[in-house]
Amino acid sequence: MSEPIRNKKLDSITAPTPQNTPANAAPISSRAQQPGVSSIKEEELDRTAASLFAANPALVSMMQAKLGSLVGRSSGYIESLPASVRRRVAGLKGVQKEHSKLEAEFQEEVLQLEKKYFAKFTPLYQTRAKIVNGNSEPTEEQIKVGETKDEDDDEDPVPEEDINKDEGVDVKGIPEFWLSAMKNQISLAEMITDRDEAALKHLTDIRMEYLDRPGFRLIFEFEENEYFTNKLVTKTYFYQEENGYGGDFIYDHAEGDKIDWKTAKDLTVRIESKKQRNKNTKQTRVVKKTVPTESFFNFFDPPKPPTDEEDDAASDIEERLELDYQLGEDIKEKLIPRAIDWFTGEALQYENIEEFDQGDFEDEDDEDEDELSDDRDEDEESDDENDGSKPKQEAAECKQS
Amino acid sequence: MSEPIRNKKLDSITAPTPQNTPANAAPISSRAQQPGVSSIKEEELDRTAASLFAANPALVSMMQAKLGSLVGRSSGYIESLPASVRRRVAGLKGVQKEHSKLEAEFQEEVLQLEKKYFAKFTPLYQTRAKIVNGNSEPTEEQIKVGETKDEDDDEDPVPEEDINKDEGVDVKGIPEFWLSAMKNQISLAEMITDRDEAALKHLTDIRMEYLDRPGFRLIFEFEENEYFTNKLVTKTYFYQEENGYGGDFIYDHAEGDKIDWKTAKDLTVRIESKKQRNKNTKQTRVVKKTVPTESFFNFFDPPKPPTDEEDDAASDIEERLELDYQLGEDIKEKLIPRAIDWFTGEALQYENIEEFDQGDFEDEDDEDEDELSDDRDEDEESDDENDGSKPKQEAAECKQS
Repeated sequence: MSEPIRNKKLDSITAPTPQNTPANAAPISSRAQQPGVSSIKEEELDRTAASLFAANPALVSMMQAKLGSLVGRSSGYIESLPASVRRRVAGLKGVQKEHSKLEAEFQEEVLQLEKKYFAKFTPLYQTRAKIVNGNSEPTEEQIKVGETKDEDDDEDPVPEEDINKDEGVDVKGIPEFWLSAMKNQISLAEMITDRDEAALKHLTDIRMEYLDRPGFRLIFEFEENEYFTNKLVTKTYFYQEENGYGGDFIYDHAEGDKIDWKTAKDLTVRIESKKQRNKNTKQTRVVKKTVPTESFFNFFDPPKPPTDEEDDAASDIEERLELDYQLGEDIKEKLIPRAIDWFTGEALQYENIEEFDQGDFEDEDDEDEDELSDDRDEDEESDDENDGSKPKQEAAECKQS
Repeated sequence: MSEPIRNKKLDSITAPTPQNTPANAAPISSRAQQPGVSSIKEEELDRTAASLFAANPALVSMMQAKLGSLVGRSSGYIESLPASVRRRVAGLKGVQKEHSKLEAEFQEEVLQLEKKYFAKFTPLYQTRAKIVNGNSEPTEEQIKVGETKDEDDDEDPVPEEDINKDEGVDVKGIPEFWLSAMKNQISLAEMITDRDEAALKHLTDIRMEYLDRPGFRLIFEFEENEYFTNKLVTKTYFYQEENGYGGDFIYDHAEGDKIDWKTAKDLTVRIESKKQRNKNTKQTRVVKKTVPTESFFNFFDPPKPPTDEEDDAASDIEERLELDYQLGEDIKEKLIPRAIDWFTGEALQYENIEEFDQGDFEDEDDEDEDELSDDRDEDEESDDENDGSKPKQEAAECKQS
């Protein structure tokens, strides 16, 4: 039996690299490529590089030394070749275009294969949903297989006497299963505020479906709750119709469902009360306004890819789009396929520790500082009614409002 | 026609992330996972984490804040659940094991699909090899397709009069095709010393083949040259027989061919002459010794995965193994499938600029400094006959010798 836990004890060594992140290696891989360097116009590329270098000055001299000469050299080199050789180079480019067509066909076949296996996974996901929501109990066989101790597993099995006890007979299914699983997946945990938790504990299922066109839809199913009336809240990721370099699918854009919030329950806004003092009368008045705030539910209102090249905010939007695609991938490739391992926390040990690099955290710190200095104005006292404070996704948006 | 260049002009934005590196998204993807956190024993995991934290102290507090509470929380949480819920958790684990078996089947089918398309790519690679080595000329059709200007391509086409000129009729094929292509791929370029170039320009083909067991073989074909007698030099990457978490293939180890160097032509060693002064007589003598040196050809003598857990050098070996796997992937997934784009440098624009992060370069600097201080001893003057100085791969080994 192939157990996902097994390889933990193999005598091989670690080599965590960007190429080794679970999101890509996940079994139902979209093979989708986020819009990358490959999909930017040259002017944009220059701008992206410029902002990258500005943020990371130490890179500049190194990149110049490493890349500058190479890129420059090769283009001059080709032009300097004799005509007979340039003809051969052109011929090889022609051959490469045939290769590219085959690569696109390959990716299409992989997608079909993913769909075929998705159909095989689906009954297992349905069984999971029934057990999670208390609509059915696991079979003795499933429990036995699940309790089979991995050789290197030092977790205590459930003692026999416990299993036969009636403890918790009144508990239906596995309470807060999806919220707990999400909170163990770092990228999602960072999005979830304390306020969100009260709503997310009403999740009854998270699943996905493929679209007729390239792309996929994430489906969040909720039981009746005090926050919104939607039973399903979905988020759909569309890939570009044309395959990219190497035949990969490329993200195009994402769309989310509108959430029908019940009155005063919208978790994506907070009421800000500001005391304003009249400079002449010295009298104060309280002004309340609704401002966007951090919430997991902003996931369903994804940023729009910039269309205008002159857009100054492009770099901020790119960052938010990147996060948005990443979250979608994480849910599709990690959370849904192996929710129980996220619930127990076992999946964490397969995470690439390098994903949490310094850069990410520095950004967050910077934004916090900005917000502090914005809020503490001499003539205004801000009284923030938002008690959730973790995520960073919407921080930039808050500043603008 | 699907051209790999096209997507450059699409109006989407950049999102370079670890999940977006070309190596993974490449069309003939091995789906192999380097031995990751998933494949280490717990004690090794602790040690790996410790060395990671030691190397990156700023990570420590952040990781503790972000991960510590999560990992701790979940394991206590499961134990605190009532028995009825724990039974359901066990049941879901059982269901997940069925899922894992399907995931492994999926990966196996993807591998079969890769092999099927590899067979379709092969005639194109053979055509390429013939053109590169001057054994045949490209067809007019291939040249025409290759010269078809991409809409956003601002490169000048070869002027008609040039094409008809006899310039270079005496040039056979495309000289130094593979060396030029390798030098445009940064990870490989870093490995190639000036001395290596003289040997690598004799490359007539780089190709690969799948093994009967999981894994692949890279084949470097050389014309007769003054350096070694091998016509083929191969490097074979073996995957573990058992799939890892999520069904991924996991690297096991690599083996390279022994290179039959001609006398005094071994590029992987250098002769070091040291003047030694007798402290009493003040007389000097010259001692020559052969020491390992940086060379691309060390690629064929890969590091061995550590088997002894007490091995103090494990962290250094892990780093070198990581680089070794990465180079293999880069050759398999990037260089071989799209060699002409590497030769012209076009492929560079699809590279993820973030791959060249500060960490990589800092390491190199540190090692250089160490070597300097080692070499400049008061009683010894080192006269290094090695004129190649770029790569870092073998730097650690040199220090030890």
